[in-house]
Amino acid sequence: MSPAQRKRDFPVSDVRRYLEPGPVVLVSSRHGQQTDIMTMGWHTVLEFTPSLVGCLISSGNHSLQLVRASGACVINVPSTALTDIVVGIGNTSGAEIDKFEHFGLTPDKALKVKAPLIRECFASFECRLHDDALVDKYNFFIFEVVKAHVAPGRKPPQTLHYMGDGAFMTSGKIISRRSRFRPGML
Amino acid sequence: MSPAQRKRDFPVSDVRRYLEPGPVVLVSSRHGQQTDIMTMGWHTVLEFTPSLVGCLISSGNHSLQLVRASGACVINVPSTALTDIVVGIGNTSGAEIDKFEHFGLTPDKALKVKAPLIRECFASFECRLHDDALVDKYNFFIFEVVKAHVAPGRKPPQTLHYMGDGAFMTSGKIISRRSRFRPGML
Repeated sequence: MSPAQRKRDFPVSDVRRYLEPGPVVLVSSRHGQQTDIMTMGWHTVLEFTPSLVGCLISSGNHSLQLVRASGACVINVPSTALTDIVVGIGNTSGAEIDKFEHFGLTPDKALKVKAPLIRECFASFECRLHDDALVDKYNFFIFEVVKAHVAPGRKPPQTLHYMGDGAFMTSGKIISRRSRFRPGML
Repeated sequence: MSPAQRKRDFPVSDVRRYLEPGPVVLVSSRHGQQTDIMTMGWHTVLEFTPSLVGCLISSGNHSLQLVRASGACVINVPSTALTDIVVGIGNTSGAEIDKFEHFGLTPDKALKVKAPLIRECFASFECRLHDDALVDKYNFFIFEVVKAHVAPGRKPPQTLHYMGDGAFMTSGKIISRRSRFRPGML
């Protein structure tokens, strides 16, 4: 069993700290009684305030209909402790299995959306659909992060970054160049 | 002086290998006699074929006008050997200095666009503007990678991943779970 991550409120305008370095994330969704989880590697921060994230959910994903119908999702960041679960989620379909049950993950109630948080992830960002202008053409969704939950700690746990072909880069050492930044550029 | 990176042709449909893990990239551009370089951390792969990359170039960047006027750019991936140059480029303006000259970088001729490759980066992707539907609203550009150049080697050099507040995560160990993927999911 994976350890639960006790999370605290986190400013939505600062989610770039966790998403900009490019981790694979787990997107959880709910519509009616159905929930699902998918892996996602194609996403980018778009704005601090409102806190906007753009991401690609291709039509092969069972989650797509839950996200479209509910207009919401939760973006959860897993650490390398969940590597095999992340791979398993990406290689199964929510049309066939209940992913929470199958992978032993715990759905926690979100505050602002119906989609559940994944307790075992160290960061969970509640998202509402903000703009679907590019959904039909590119499957590109723009979400607003309306609530952020992050496990406290001086530095983030080790994350997974997909490279294709079954390989992941894991996060390494953190370095600071803060003193070389102009204040407005941090 | 930073070492030159001898690069070879690389399939444009595989650029996700270098961009999906979320590195800070250097965007080079040219319009008329003017060139510029900017740092960029907000980008995502959108499609394999055509090879599409979406990214945010905010209006504060001198490069914006060169990219818009020329409809092209080159996305270059620096290794950690260029950390201080990356920070310097992000904290200066192309309106005031010639960034190639100031930072001792070498512009190499691209094959399909006028923007120059940066010789000292280990990967350079020539891009043409593919869709500007979200430029006015979000400064979000969708580029097509029309030519890719990558320095050969079994694994990519160590990359920089920005976390805000002057801190970078560097890439760590690579792990493979290839045997656990269904063939169509790699």
